Amino acid sequence: MYDFDADIADCARAVEQALDRFVSAEVLSGPGSAPARLIAAMRHGSLNGGKRLRPLLVRQAAAVFGVAPALALTAGLAVEALHCYSLIHDDLPAMDDDDLRRGRPTVHKAFDDATAILAGDGLLTHAFGLLATPDAHPDPAVRIALVAELAQGSGAGGMVGGQMRDIEGEQGGFSGNEIAQMQAMKTGALIRASVRIGAIIGGADARALSALTAYAEAAGRAFQLADDILDVTATAEAMGKATGKDAAAGKQTLVGQLGVEGARLQLASIANEALAALRTFGPKADGLRASARYFAEREN
Amino acid sequence: MYDFDADIADCARAVEQALDRFVSAEVLSGPGSAPARLIAAMRHGSLNGGKRLRPLLVRQAAAVFGVAPALALTAGLAVEALHCYSLIHDDLPAMDDDDLRRGRPTVHKAFDDATAILAGDGLLTHAFGLLATPDAHPDPAVRIALVAELAQGSGAGGMVGGQMRDIEGEQGGFSGNEIAQMQAMKTGALIRASVRIGAIIGGADARALSALTAYAEAAGRAFQLADDILDVTATAEAMGKATGKDAAAGKQTLVGQLGVEGARLQLASIANEALAALRTFGPKADGLRASARYFAEREN
Repeated sequence: MYDFDADIADCARAVEQALDRFVSAEVLSGPGSAPARLIAAMRHGSLNGGKRLRPLLVRQAAAVFGVAPALALTAGLAVEALHCYSLIHDDLPAMDDDDLRRGRPTVHKAFDDATAILAGDGLLTHAFGLLATPDAHPDPAVRIALVAELAQGSGAGGMVGGQMRDIEGEQGGFSGNEIAQMQAMKTGALIRASVRIGAIIGGADARALSALTAYAEAAGRAFQLADDILDVTATAEAMGKATGKDAAAGKQTLVGQLGVEGARLQLASIANEALAALRTFGPKADGLRASARYFAEREN
Repeated sequence: MYDFDADIADCARAVEQALDRFVSAEVLSGPGSAPARLIAAMRHGSLNGGKRLRPLLVRQAAAVFGVAPALALTAGLAVEALHCYSLIHDDLPAMDDDDLRRGRPTVHKAFDDATAILAGDGLLTHAFGLLATPDAHPDPAVRIALVAELAQGSGAGGMVGGQMRDIEGEQGGFSGNEIAQMQAMKTGALIRASVRIGAIIGGADARALSALTAYAEAAGRAFQLADDILDVTATAEAMGKATGKDAAAGKQTLVGQLGVEGARLQLASIANEALAALRTFGPKADGLRASARYFAEREN
């Protein structure tokens, strides 16, 4: 019987421990040694007690093919390092200008803007470095497929492009379709990459990869819609970050267009879509099923 | 008979053409399509008529093993994309705050800070995406070795760490050794990675890789020392960027410690060191030899 609470807690613990080891002077040395201030900023921005949902999706997608959690950890760390870099850069004054993240000062507040830019760059680079190590997968052909997947999900046609669209959208005038497209890139693309990376580690064939991609795209939309609803309904205390920011920034969200109740109805429908994409998979996909439900029902 | 002028011109042309194709809406599409403004900023920061010295080193190191220039081009592009991202981020107001690069406005001046941060992130990500394509090398095991090499050279123990040290050094008090260490990371690490990437494409054995690494480290020191001398002696017009900036910013350089003449003597000695590291290689290393001489004698 699959236990979501145990899985998410175990995954978060494993990721935190592994980041503690991998975001360190020893591992980050290259032709020179990484400066202490840079390592401290990279650690501040990654060892933050996050929920580690993306590594969870990597391990859950790999579990569909019987892969043990430990064998999906390094790839999960790479995705998480990528996610953490994106938060550090998004929080910069030139971008979303956030002072608080998980109840702590953001990296540029705890250090300074230059250090935050470099810490983000360092984590982004390290994500690909992690995928290149044999720990990510024994077969180099699989590792290079993981690199391609992460680059595509996080690049200009994915996460980075979504952040660009989000900034452009602050001027207003986005249609519902354009908002959905922006969110599919900004948040959805890395969730999609997480699931596909787990599937690739598991040796998924084309049909399974396609089904899991459909799952991931729906799950990503559910995640983002829940986030938008929480931005309106939750308190800053429960979220560990400022809420009501989207409206204050004039940001376009689907909640603004559908209202909270309309958005909740749509959220339930998207979550069902995610579950439907998994119908050909047996109990080994229970982890992914639980995550889709969690994304739709989470309260912080 | 090796012709350096023809080689550098041919390489620059090939890189410019290939970047024009690879930094485009078609190639950068992922789960979504890359926003036009982001692509424009990425193109502004990469299609800039640069000398393309790093792709040149990749092709020259590959040529030591008889690899044709076309087969070293994609990896060279990846290194160049990486280099261009680092310039975009280094030019930001929060970092070196430069308005001019190659006689044109820097990316954050031509666009804005947020777009420049994202354009840099996009190019960095794209560099690894390029290495994952079969064009970089037919063997996935070689491609993943290139990813590892680029990540190590450009990460916290390499280029990014060097930029961090450079910022820390603005407070002064760096010894000659500390300056050398900073420069070996900030500039040297990516030059080292370029040569090693070419050697890995060529299938270098451990002994050849070690000799070429020694070459690259000396060539990188020559390159940086020439840059520091030019910062003192050249005009802004010849350099296409502001000169005299290091002294104005209170930056520590070896020229400040040795004087211009002392620095020139040391430069000649380092260039000889680079040439000595190539002594076991025949005429196929003439490209690398010419580059070492060029680094030591360049006037812009």
